[in-house]
Amino acid sequence: MKAIAVERGDSRPRLIDKPRPDPDPGDALVRTLRVGIDGTDFEVVEGTHGGFPAGSDHQVLGHEAVGVVEDPNGTDLEAGQLVVPTVRRPPGDATEYFRRGEPDMAPPDECLERGIDGAHGYMAEYFTSPAGFLVPVPDAFATTGVLIEPMSNTEKALEHAYASRSAFEWQRDAALVLGNGPLGLLTLSRLQSEFDRTYCLGRRDRPDPTIDLIERLGATYVDSRETPVADVPAVYEPMDLIYEATGYARHAFETIDALDQNGVGVLLGLPGDDEFDVAGGRLHRKLVLGNRALVGSVNSHIEHFEAACETLSALPDWFGDELITDTFEPAAVDDAFSAAPDRIKTVIEFDSR
Amino acid sequence: MKAIAVERGDSRPRLIDKPRPDPDPGDALVRTLRVGIDGTDFEVVEGTHGGFPAGSDHQVLGHEAVGVVEDPNGTDLEAGQLVVPTVRRPPGDATEYFRRGEPDMAPPDECLERGIDGAHGYMAEYFTSPAGFLVPVPDAFATTGVLIEPMSNTEKALEHAYASRSAFEWQRDAALVLGNGPLGLLTLSRLQSEFDRTYCLGRRDRPDPTIDLIERLGATYVDSRETPVADVPAVYEPMDLIYEATGYARHAFETIDALDQNGVGVLLGLPGDDEFDVAGGRLHRKLVLGNRALVGSVNSHIEHFEAACETLSALPDWFGDELITDTFEPAAVDDAFSAAPDRIKTVIEFDSR
Repeated sequence: MKAIAVERGDSRPRLIDKPRPDPDPGDALVRTLRVGIDGTDFEVVEGTHGGFPAGSDHQVLGHEAVGVVEDPNGTDLEAGQLVVPTVRRPPGDATEYFRRGEPDMAPPDECLERGIDGAHGYMAEYFTSPAGFLVPVPDAFATTGVLIEPMSNTEKALEHAYASRSAFEWQRDAALVLGNGPLGLLTLSRLQSEFDRTYCLGRRDRPDPTIDLIERLGATYVDSRETPVADVPAVYEPMDLIYEATGYARHAFETIDALDQNGVGVLLGLPGDDEFDVAGGRLHRKLVLGNRALVGSVNSHIEHFEAACETLSALPDWFGDELITDTFEPAAVDDAFSAAPDRIKTVIEFDSR
Repeated sequence: MKAIAVERGDSRPRLIDKPRPDPDPGDALVRTLRVGIDGTDFEVVEGTHGGFPAGSDHQVLGHEAVGVVEDPNGTDLEAGQLVVPTVRRPPGDATEYFRRGEPDMAPPDECLERGIDGAHGYMAEYFTSPAGFLVPVPDAFATTGVLIEPMSNTEKALEHAYASRSAFEWQRDAALVLGNGPLGLLTLSRLQSEFDRTYCLGRRDRPDPTIDLIERLGATYVDSRETPVADVPAVYEPMDLIYEATGYARHAFETIDALDQNGVGVLLGLPGDDEFDVAGGRLHRKLVLGNRALVGSVNSHIEHFEAACETLSALPDWFGDELITDTFEPAAVDDAFSAAPDRIKTVIEFDSR
């Protein structure tokens, strides 16, 4: 079968041929429909994040997938059922985090991540997975199901951020998303119904499809070249929630300055080892006197995938169509992994329903 | 009546004489029993925190008080009832934060603080207060009632910290308190029943009464001169909760390094304007990949005072006695506000029950 993988010592993904996998007991076989590409895939290709499966000379990419159950193999799934796979897997025996259904809370070195760290991903015509890690989704997600995994990360991050504000009457007036990539835009769409005013920060010139999408959602585009994060309260307004999806280390700290009294910043980016000066005393004091919080969040569990389905189902139809700007066949792997200024979300299509 | 106040232009507190206040409608008159001294009082004396009441040439100190209702003045309170006053007051008309019973969540510039910022405190033979800001407490608190206000700040801080960890199954194995002052020790006593192992960080040599108290509580003393906060995981263990009560700005950031996976740091200190270098990228990444959180917290509301009563009631009798090391008459104001190495909590006693 066809698969897209990076090989040891290589610096770009290739279309390879490998045997179709046989499901082990408890696994189902899934025929892949579509797999999304995100920033983590590029980091895996570059070798800056994750790692190859033990003993393998290649790693199949992809962790944002939707597919159809080809062979339930005795599991509770049904042939023809549309499913989205979760990402984390136990490294051997299931740990307490997996047993309680919270693999997202496991230490990173106590889990594998399909397509990212120590396990093959989903960019192949077929993949297998324990049935318990395949989330059945409605038939309407045959094309937009690739958005469920990234949106599940937002569901988890917001669940934790909201929990941190649950001990008092929190006002959700204004929210700011840092980053206008696919995850930022998905999050912005999620926040539209929960905040009176929403903002999304990027550093692109008009005309730009992400700015069009931000404004079509009813949000305000903030150009970080004109208005750095710390200046947002003065130029726009202080924020009750800030969602960081840039991976720019300074944003974690500038977020504190842009939060309103009792606000929360939720961090999802994975920056490098930058060191820099901070006004540490002032930031510490702002956290305390303003009852502010910073909450880090990674990955998601099955309930977040289910919540992501509900969130995406409630969005207008045009949103998924405008977000997924580029769809490629597996053979066009070079094009799919190249940069283009008017792209938002790129998808590899292996098959259709 | 006698009062302890700082006068404009002066740099130390003095015993003064001022008229006994008359309660306004809705206010009760309280006969003060005891008032505790804490770090904030010293900052008010030095002029580095808070400010004088508008139009006043002096500020009566004190925000940790216990007293007896002398004149209920038509309110629901009863004469002879033991009460503890809360600290924040509306600057004029009650704002939404006061109306909903959450003055602790108000912006600092939208409230007065008795004894700290813009309003006289409780270090006087009598004080008045709206009855709704006087918390009735059991008779057993006639001497230890001064600990209720500081413990209420811990109740609020931990409520917010625990809320931030409520979206998953959080494990409470180990907790570290930064700071062995009265607030740190009160918090340590509170954490004893909730964590398997507790630690308290200070920088004092043995023999020392705070180290004795830490060990009598069953906790481990961590000397920050030997083990800086960031080294705590390697020397002891990573922490599920860290409670910062030092006001040392670097501790807010070092806390991230000392937290275990899924841990939370709760910040209460108010440092100055220190600037310094941080390994910002690594700290940002640790927050994200470990689902870690930092939660700032200030002040408390009436339910936290009530919770503090319950917490203190459950502690062994020796604890309050060992924590309150020094009790002075108002005339001994100079001694009360001077430093002494074997002091933990200092109290001014105006009267007894």
